[in-house]
Amino acid sequence: MNFYDLYDERLSAAERSLVEAAGDFCRGEFSAHLLESHTQGRAYDASWIDRWAKEGFLGLQAPREFGGHDASFLCKIRVAQTMAEHGFAAAFAINNLQGSVTRVARFGSERQRAEFLGAMLGGRTLCAPAMSEPDGGSDLAALKTRARRVDGGWLISGTKSWITNGSIIQCANLLARVDDPTGAEAAGDIASFLVPLVDGPTLRREEPVMPGVRSFRLASLIFQEHFVPAWCLFDPPGQAFRSSMSSVNAARVHVAAMCIASARAALAETVGYADSRQAFGKPLLRHQGLGWELAEVSLRLEAANALVLRAAIAVQTGKAALTLAAQAKKFAVDVAVWALDQCQRAMGATGASADHRLAMLSSETRLAAFGDGTSQMLLDRIAKGLAKDYGPSPAQKESDR
Amino acid sequence: MNFYDLYDERLSAAERSLVEAAGDFCRGEFSAHLLESHTQGRAYDASWIDRWAKEGFLGLQAPREFGGHDASFLCKIRVAQTMAEHGFAAAFAINNLQGSVTRVARFGSERQRAEFLGAMLGGRTLCAPAMSEPDGGSDLAALKTRARRVDGGWLISGTKSWITNGSIIQCANLLARVDDPTGAEAAGDIASFLVPLVDGPTLRREEPVMPGVRSFRLASLIFQEHFVPAWCLFDPPGQAFRSSMSSVNAARVHVAAMCIASARAALAETVGYADSRQAFGKPLLRHQGLGWELAEVSLRLEAANALVLRAAIAVQTGKAALTLAAQAKKFAVDVAVWALDQCQRAMGATGASADHRLAMLSSETRLAAFGDGTSQMLLDRIAKGLAKDYGPSPAQKESDR
Amino acid sequence: MNFYDLYDERLSAAERSLVEAAGDFCRGEFSAHLLESHTQGRAYDASWIDRWAKEGFLGLQAPREFGGHDASFLCKIRVAQTMAEHGFAAAFAINNLQGSVTRVARFGSERQRAEFLGAMLGGRTLCAPAMSEPDGGSDLAALKTRARRVDGGWLISGTKSWITNGSIIQCANLLARVDDPTGAEAAGDIASFLVPLVDGPTLRREEPVMPGVRSFRLASLIFQEHFVPAWCLFDPPGQAFRSSMSSVNAARVHVAAMCIASARAALAETVGYADSRQAFGKPLLRHQGLGWELAEVSLRLEAANALVLRAAIAVQTGKAALTLAAQAKKFAVDVAVWALDQCQRAMGATGASADHRLAMLSSETRLAAFGDGTSQMLLDRIAKGLAKDYGPSPAQKESDR
Amino acid sequence: MNFYDLYDERLSAAERSLVEAAGDFCRGEFSAHLLESHTQGRAYDASWIDRWAKEGFLGLQAPREFGGHDASFLCKIRVAQTMAEHGFAAAFAINNLQGSVTRVARFGSERQRAEFLGAMLGGRTLCAPAMSEPDGGSDLAALKTRARRVDGGWLISGTKSWITNGSIIQCANLLARVDDPTGAEAAGDIASFLVPLVDGPTLRREEPVMPGVRSFRLASLIFQEHFVPAWCLFDPPGQAFRSSMSSVNAARVHVAAMCIASARAALAETVGYADSRQAFGKPLLRHQGLGWELAEVSLRLEAANALVLRAAIAVQTGKAALTLAAQAKKFAVDVAVWALDQCQRAMGATGASADHRLAMLSSETRLAAFGDGTSQMLLDRIAKGLAKDYGPSPAQKESDR
Repeated sequence: MNFYDLYDERLSAAERSLVEAAGDFCRGEFSAHLLESHTQGRAYDASWIDRWAKEGFLGLQAPREFGGHDASFLCKIRVAQTMAEHGFAAAFAINNLQGSVTRVARFGSERQRAEFLGAMLGGRTLCAPAMSEPDGGSDLAALKTRARRVDGGWLISGTKSWITNGSIIQCANLLARVDDPTGAEAAGDIASFLVPLVDGPTLRREEPVMPGVRSFRLASLIFQEHFVPAWCLFDPPGQAFRSSMSSVNAARVHVAAMCIASARAALAETVGYADSRQAFGKPLLRHQGLGWELAEVSLRLEAANALVLRAAIAVQTGKAALTLAAQAKKFAVDVAVWALDQCQRAMGATGASADHRLAMLSSETRLAAFGDGTSQMLLDRIAKGLAKDYGPSPAQKESDR
Repeated sequence: MNFYDLYDERLSAAERSLVEAAGDFCRGEFSAHLLESHTQGRAYDASWIDRWAKEGFLGLQAPREFGGHDASFLCKIRVAQTMAEHGFAAAFAINNLQGSVTRVARFGSERQRAEFLGAMLGGRTLCAPAMSEPDGGSDLAALKTRARRVDGGWLISGTKSWITNGSIIQCANLLARVDDPTGAEAAGDIASFLVPLVDGPTLRREEPVMPGVRSFRLASLIFQEHFVPAWCLFDPPGQAFRSSMSSVNAARVHVAAMCIASARAALAETVGYADSRQAFGKPLLRHQGLGWELAEVSLRLEAANALVLRAAIAVQTGKAALTLAAQAKKFAVDVAVWALDQCQRAMGATGASADHRLAMLSSETRLAAFGDGTSQMLLDRIAKGLAKDYGPSPAQKESDR
Repeated sequence: MNFYDLYDERLSAAERSLVEAAGDFCRGEFSAHLLESHTQGRAYDASWIDRWAKEGFLGLQAPREFGGHDASFLCKIRVAQTMAEHGFAAAFAINNLQGSVTRVARFGSERQRAEFLGAMLGGRTLCAPAMSEPDGGSDLAALKTRARRVDGGWLISGTKSWITNGSIIQCANLLARVDDPTGAEAAGDIASFLVPLVDGPTLRREEPVMPGVRSFRLASLIFQEHFVPAWCLFDPPGQAFRSSMSSVNAARVHVAAMCIASARAALAETVGYADSRQAFGKPLLRHQGLGWELAEVSLRLEAANALVLRAAIAVQTGKAALTLAAQAKKFAVDVAVWALDQCQRAMGATGASADHRLAMLSSETRLAAFGDGTSQMLLDRIAKGLAKDYGPSPAQKESDR
Repeated sequence: MNFYDLYDERLSAAERSLVEAAGDFCRGEFSAHLLESHTQGRAYDASWIDRWAKEGFLGLQAPREFGGHDASFLCKIRVAQTMAEHGFAAAFAINNLQGSVTRVARFGSERQRAEFLGAMLGGRTLCAPAMSEPDGGSDLAALKTRARRVDGGWLISGTKSWITNGSIIQCANLLARVDDPTGAEAAGDIASFLVPLVDGPTLRREEPVMPGVRSFRLASLIFQEHFVPAWCLFDPPGQAFRSSMSSVNAARVHVAAMCIASARAALAETVGYADSRQAFGKPLLRHQGLGWELAEVSLRLEAANALVLRAAIAVQTGKAALTLAAQAKKFAVDVAVWALDQCQRAMGATGASADHRLAMLSSETRLAAFGDGTSQMLLDRIAKGLAKDYGPSPAQKESDR
């Protein structure tokens, strides 16, 4: 059985090579470094991002004309899963960078591409989306960051929080409410900008102390009349919200896919341990009780895997994916967190030691619940569609009372 | 969203028509009859089997040369799901009959086909597999029914229990241990027979009283020196066990698929109810707490659905399906039973009344846990493969310690 | 270990005798009758109520001066649990009758006691509370039944639904909204009445068909200008709601206590079965996987039991019990329903046959979720108190940031 | 509602003062220090153990004649819970020390008391039990550490692992298999010793790196012909096993009690947060979905609390507690780990930051699953007693078939 076979059979040969190259990259030195830095309470070394960029992975989905690989969504998922088997936070954070490159390559203006794209592909200008705010969470109506139009550009003021890689990025793709003196955009007033980040009097970063999950490099960006040139406007007022919503399904399936990869790696580690360690005269794995517990882990992981695949196909083929993506993320996170707990139960105290990747994966994967839609938002989203999505089937209609 | 779309896109046009015809059959009178007979504590009327046979459904997977449809496994699943939306027990029991027809058509001897096949396709000779025994359960080594070779045939003695449709079948496909005076088959001594069932001094039926699940028509068959002609030997000694094992993966995925169809139908009924009933000034479905509960039901159902599909594709394409089929059945039964409970919670006491199909589906689906592998057997099965199925992935190898 | 020891040590010797007498009553003929009538799709025979009354149990909590036992709340619980080990629906329904006797004895007017109490204690006038309405559920503001004052009494119009014993009671303790021409009670306008029930043009009963749970004898009472003499007013307008709320905590703990008793009985049946049946050379109970599953059942049952006891002590001693009673009912119902499912899983198909009490207990206990507060109402209730009930502990205060 | 009221009403006035004094100790500086050191990846400072000893808490259960408080088991629990509200690992580790003091005070020889007790009470000689071994886990038959009798004492060889406070203790209460040249003790050959620990050629310590749970100070002790004077024999061969088993019930209930205290503290932190933070125009806590989730947390915590109390009473009053203690530990750990996860879900990413105690409590409490009986051992223990503990109740006997 190959856990990823139904994904892989939809990849091109070139894409399969990319997945293998990602495996080569992660295996060995990088993997050991992730565990070691976690153990020492540090983020992994950012120089690994340079090496990842040099291998061309930041251009995974950028069009070929700009030097990218033009890879499919399923390929992107498989690359991210490959890294997530070694560390969830690093996979989440590094692959997050790739999304911004893709967006600039696909939707940026000529000037934006000229100014940013080369440095982004090369890993010299790292960029991350900046949407959340301290009082915001899921409530878009509460968005407070403002962009005031001035001569030659805009002045940004406000706080963006929980930004992945926030402590190292040189650029933010930022949502703000536009105060336009022309008054033209009164209604749909949310725009997005590519904001060069130079720390100074107009920009300050704050890093919350996050024990056990430092590789996300979460930070807040606090802007005070931070100038952005006019050409850095990315989505004009009224289009930014829709634009960021259009990528949300893909983002949810993507994080779901990484969750199950991390959990799958933890299961492999646990099964290997339980197969090698003896108790009462036979391997732990041969004791029926523990065997059943890990069997249950395996089957729920397979279910999550199958659902993620279904949602990924919907995203890739442009089908309605709003409900499926929300379901896949909710379920994959739940299963992964539970599976990691079960693996910890099975391995005992030794699983919490730095000899194993288990505790790191468990701490880090837990954070997946909060990016790209909390459980609460996802359930609201699914609930809203229930009557439409789960009405009577064709075979039931005109039949049930 | 169409719950079954990924199944349906793998069907031929002819197969899709069969699924629609099954829908036409079930909708309306048949559906109402299932609920009414359940309410009155009776099995549904067996005359419906005749009508189903007349529509040609018992030959669903029989080769075309014998008058069958030669339908694929996925088509068979979809037909069964269509009926399972109206009643689980009827769908389980009626589709169970079809399996025996297929086996005789595909693997029977010329004589067996000549004697049985026409009557089986026409629904005049109903046949069911007879494997379980009172003290047996999952322990094949404990099989006690014996076939003693005599002139011109065999004498069967022993008790087969929990036979679906056991109270109405005219034929059993029965496993027995062969006492061969030639002593040739000492080792692999389990054979199978097509046993015509005529009640009399050598055959008695016992029907356990099963309130709420009478449509399974479970019964024991008690044989005492029951004569079977020699040509009724189906799998010769030593081959019956392997042969029955080869169909077990399909059987598990099949019952899993029906479970989720019944649960899907219950969700539709519940969502419809909650959307139409008001409390505190808005539909029940718009209350966040209940909305979340049903959203959770929907997503676990989708996960079970996706896993069943993955296992069904493995069965249909001849890939290794032993672990996947066991995982799919375990998970689908668990999710369906839980989902039906959640739906009952959401509908309140009204869901237990005969105005709704919910209570019937819930009682009946619960029985799915016991046919084709109990949870206990499935977990043992999966646990046995853990080390092989869930070792390190390619990306992990040579990396994790 | 005695599951009920911490209850029993708080009973008086006389109370312990009552519990034993209840055990004597239930054991044997009555117990067998419950199972048999369930199997045949009927309610248990109402003549058993007479016999229960003749033993004096309907006066369990009535003051001694009126011929009652003046038993404590914990004693009442233990009597109900004793019967619930034999059948949940009968225990729920019969003990429901006792509550009305207690209310009339304790809070009825002299006239009401004179007219009703003797017949109620003797089981000749059975009385049940009538609160729910078809569109009502938990929303008291939606109460529609009205009482219009006329010469010498009141005319009741409206529908009361889901009345336990509704098909056999001779009296209802009914909530109605008062239309008082004097206009005096405009604000708090809900009153309660003791309503003699004589079927006729002003009163019709409707019995929903409830397969598997007929022993609750649920029915709707449909009143159309049904006359009630003035002296039958029980709680005057404005006091009925508070009065019915004051008993709700006790009712919740009571039903929770019965749930765990039914589940405890099912566990005993299952453990007995698993201890006696062999597989692979040893009793089922000695297989580690199944042993763990039943061990988990036992420990959650003990937890529910301990929580019910805590809530019962709070009710009995007059401490704040609103949150605890809601928690105990929610948890006990959840655990009992789950435990009954696990027991069914452990026993296999045989557990669904009429040879065992398991399937009956499982169908019936499921209904406990709907009386005396649905899960939804209980969670709302508990959530409302969270900030008050679960603020920082004394040891935390002034310490956590 | 007071979460601990039913414990507290069983304490004497003096014991209640001790609990309050523990609260005074923990609140403020100590509490802040626990969080800070966790955040920095260090264990809390061991000087706090001195301060705790100076307050007299290491003598909590030592007899008064030796300067102890002779406190009851429930008092000990309440003191430990008080600290566990501030940090689980510190509470576990510090209270672990107290257990050894009690054992020496109660069961030590005169010489042992003379040599050790003063220093132990004063915190100068810290002592911990040393039972686990690298290949041992729960399998006592696999115990490999040996004590060889030599002139004037014994030579200890072997490895003890997962010793709480292992990196700082000056003494271990160690189980070893005795090689007695007299051959007298062939059968029951396990003894226990009070082993002074001086690092050197015969004793080496190894500390596994345990990110996130360093305050347990887990370490292995590796002995190679480590000399122990004859008078340090604590339990003679054949008695050590029984003796360590006699305290195991108390230890299990004790750790269960701390688990729920940590989870209770996390719930308070979460409720406070959700009550103060707004979304969509009202506090998070007023949103029905989240309210229900936290209500469910509260009620399972109450159930665990009630079960722990029941088990604690059994231990304190000397009743059969083997099953109850195992049930209480299994359930309390499960509920606490789940509750901490739910709280993390409710608080979002902010709950993982060092601004809150939540992540620390969650990481640390997870380890409780492994000390004093893993889930696997506990389930085995409970399963073994099922037939005896959960046979038919008195009311069922002679009734059910």
